[in-house]
Amino acid sequence: MSVSTNNSARLRDEERARLIWLLTTDKAITSSLLNKLTLVEQFDSGALENQIAEVGVLVEHLKPADLADTLEALPAEERRALWLLISENKRGQVLLEASENVWDDLIDQMSDKALLEAMNTLDIDEQIYIVQHLPRNLTGRLLATLSPAERARVRQVMNYDPGSVGAIMEFEVITVRPDVTLGTVQRYLRRLGKMPENTDKLFVTDRENKLLGELELKTILISPAGMKVGDVMERDILAFHPDENAEKAARTFERDNLISAALVDPAGKLMGRITIDEIVDVVYRETDNDLRQMGGLSGDEDVFAPVHKAVKTRWAWLAVNLCTAFIASRVIDGFEHTISKLVALASLMPIVAGIGGNTGNQTITMIVRALALQYIQPGNFSFLILREMGVALINGLVWGGIMGGVTWALYGDPALGGVMMLAMVLNLLVAALMGVLIPMVMTKFGHDPAVGSSVMITAITDTGGFFIFLGLATIFLL
Amino acid sequence: MSVSTNNSARLRDEERARLIWLLTTDKAITSSLLNKLTLVEQFDSGALENQIAEVGVLVEHLKPADLADTLEALPAEERRALWLLISENKRGQVLLEASENVWDDLIDQMSDKALLEAMNTLDIDEQIYIVQHLPRNLTGRLLATLSPAERARVRQVMNYDPGSVGAIMEFEVITVRPDVTLGTVQRYLRRLGKMPENTDKLFVTDRENKLLGELELKTILISPAGMKVGDVMERDILAFHPDENAEKAARTFERDNLISAALVDPAGKLMGRITIDEIVDVVYRETDNDLRQMGGLSGDEDVFAPVHKAVKTRWAWLAVNLCTAFIASRVIDGFEHTISKLVALASLMPIVAGIGGNTGNQTITMIVRALALQYIQPGNFSFLILREMGVALINGLVWGGIMGGVTWALYGDPALGGVMMLAMVLNLLVAALMGVLIPMVMTKFGHDPAVGSSVMITAITDTGGFFIFLGLATIFLL
Repeated sequence: MSVSTNNSARLRDEERARLIWLLTTDKAITSSLLNKLTLVEQFDSGALENQIAEVGVLVEHLKPADLADTLEALPAEERRALWLLISENKRGQVLLEASENVWDDLIDQMSDKALLEAMNTLDIDEQIYIVQHLPRNLTGRLLATLSPAERARVRQVMNYDPGSVGAIMEFEVITVRPDVTLGTVQRYLRRLGKMPENTDKLFVTDRENKLLGELELKTILISPAGMKVGDVMERDILAFHPDENAEKAARTFERDNLISAALVDPAGKLMGRITIDEIVDVVYRETDNDLRQMGGLSGDEDVFAPVHKAVKTRWAWLAVNLCTAFIASRVIDGFEHTISKLVALASLMPIVAGIGGNTGNQTITMIVRALALQYIQPGNFSFLILREMGVALINGLVWGGIMGGVTWALYGDPALGGVMMLAMVLNLLVAALMGVLIPMVMTKFGHDPAVGSSVMITAITDTGGFFIFLGLATIFLL
Repeated sequence: MSVSTNNSARLRDEERARLIWLLTTDKAITSSLLNKLTLVEQFDSGALENQIAEVGVLVEHLKPADLADTLEALPAEERRALWLLISENKRGQVLLEASENVWDDLIDQMSDKALLEAMNTLDIDEQIYIVQHLPRNLTGRLLATLSPAERARVRQVMNYDPGSVGAIMEFEVITVRPDVTLGTVQRYLRRLGKMPENTDKLFVTDRENKLLGELELKTILISPAGMKVGDVMERDILAFHPDENAEKAARTFERDNLISAALVDPAGKLMGRITIDEIVDVVYRETDNDLRQMGGLSGDEDVFAPVHKAVKTRWAWLAVNLCTAFIASRVIDGFEHTISKLVALASLMPIVAGIGGNTGNQTITMIVRALALQYIQPGNFSFLILREMGVALINGLVWGGIMGGVTWALYGDPALGGVMMLAMVLNLLVAALMGVLIPMVMTKFGHDPAVGSSVMITAITDTGGFFIFLGLATIFLL
């Protein structure tokens, strides 16, 4: 029997798709599921019964991570129906893998007690993670279920900033002393009988818990059993402090191809570790947020949220956009006299504004990315700004020249063509300058440059474009 | 001595920043470096000599991945100067970690022979990766340096699509038979004396190389040495086919918290493996590309490319944008008569267009993301489109109502206010509908929905907004 056909990623994709299909195409399934469990109604058709049986089989077969993804892809009602079908012992894992949007929907109907029970199957780091992000404050109740030692640790982790390495750290680490032999280590491991997930190395510490080095599992396996840990351990290692930025740590994991890394306090004492699975989540979350924020969506938008929730998450950006558009509109209004004399200006002005917005957004996207990769340093900043201005000047002369020529040809007015060209050059220069400055200044003041910078640049290039074009027209054409 | 202060990520960040600072703030350093190595000039100042010595120390101390990042953050000339300082045995690793933009700059000055020598320190998978992406065709020369067996493998890998799992696969795997004991496995590993990087598990195969299961290193360490491999191996495992999509595989790695996974052919025979470090690169590359493409940058834009290169990589999007802006401008021009009668329309029309573009981009961003996460399935598509239309309708009525009121107040013309509101509602509906349809249709036809959909939606909402607003005004206000 081949392994691959039995449990391939493709097969699971198909099963997820099938489950979504079953739940969303026939409302009867969802309502039967919801009702069956409250014992109000009986099944009324054989076909329905079969489909519901198939749903049950799929839910049984899919892994928690797949079920979490399926929940993400369902509207609220279907989400609740599916949740009721997931067995108690899987629910904790499913919650862990699902996003906060899904939690909001499901947790509303669960009592605190049911919630804590669902989380029972999770280890303590995972419970903390969920409790920290829950819309409800369960911290007290969770703490009450813990031993005093665990409680102290939980309190510690909850103090770290959600974007820091401390917030994703795991307590469970295996430590060994440098003066024992590999044979002893292996006997110790056999006695333990298990290792935390993603353990690729043990940490070597002294009696005061100070980190001395790392011992890879690989090294234990390939080295003679009589060697001392201190002789084969890696001393030149990378350790993180809990207050470091998690996104930066992710870049370091990528750069150094790490699976896990130690977390130490300022005195060099081992506190815990971070692992690649958390790091991969950080990477996806980071880039996801960047993408959404550049598109003007708030970070917690849920694709399958009902209409009223979606309206709520988007209204802020719309309001901001409306304000900036209104300001641009007032600038145009100030030139009403100019436009009434030369109506052609009204049809040409969006070109100047649009091309500026396009260039500005290109520049901003590039700068935001370079900032995330830490490519921009005080040393190369002036190169960058001069380069962008150079690109804008060339593009302005070329495309502005073309549009100026087209304008001349269309309206038979060389002066209008000249104004068009000059306005495009100037607006592109404004776009390039602000495209570099906006994200840099936002970073300087500790803001995420991906949030709102696209809206800002568009506001500036629109207002600026209208002002420059209509202003030049007033000066030269009237 | 504390480990963490010795080699922390922070310290390395600082060293990278310092190196960039030294190379970019004083042109004399770069030119001395470039000239010294061609033996043209002598140092002319003590301060310069000190700084150059510091550059040398930093280059010596930084790891290949850090040097690669530093190269990314330098303009072309400084890039070349730094490259000359990097020692032969590090160059291969540095090349591997750097992007194609950096390769382009550096490789221009290297002979084929020097290039193959730099790659000498890399293993065969890495050499293939570089050769596949080089602007120059070195495949033949690389193949000539290989044994016939290796050559056959290389040919095989080079046949896979660059976006497939096959293109990032590694040949080096350790396999064991199911009928040996763990003690025998460990003796075998000791004899090997090393393991490929990121080995968290061995693969269990039969005599025909068919994959039977996985044996985690962890399991070898914690289980009694007398146990048979077949009794402790994991049978329910996930294996990939080489033609599967690498981005999808990355999502599976994230979902299942994998470190490595087997690659099998259709007959279930083990071909190689993929590892988390390649997967993390895939994730960063994927999201990077999405971000840049949504911002209207081509995939291979280099932040520190000289002006003429940057102009070249961006002209296409600018041209497209200019065309769409021109079309919108022609629509306005068609209503010249209407505008000349009521100049207020000229200042109000950008609001209708802008708010539509904003909503459309919100929708597109959400849909592109949901498509990447495979959340959108035939079953939930109709929910999604109705939801977006609902959101657009509510937002249109609320914000359109407000803007209509403001317009009425500003111009004292209730009919103009009504036209404003109606135009906003209609344009928001168009934006929502197209925002869902454009990425879905692009995906349907095998295009990446992140590329160009933002430009398309803006074109539609601009042109549509002007047409709707001015059209309604012509009907109701003249």
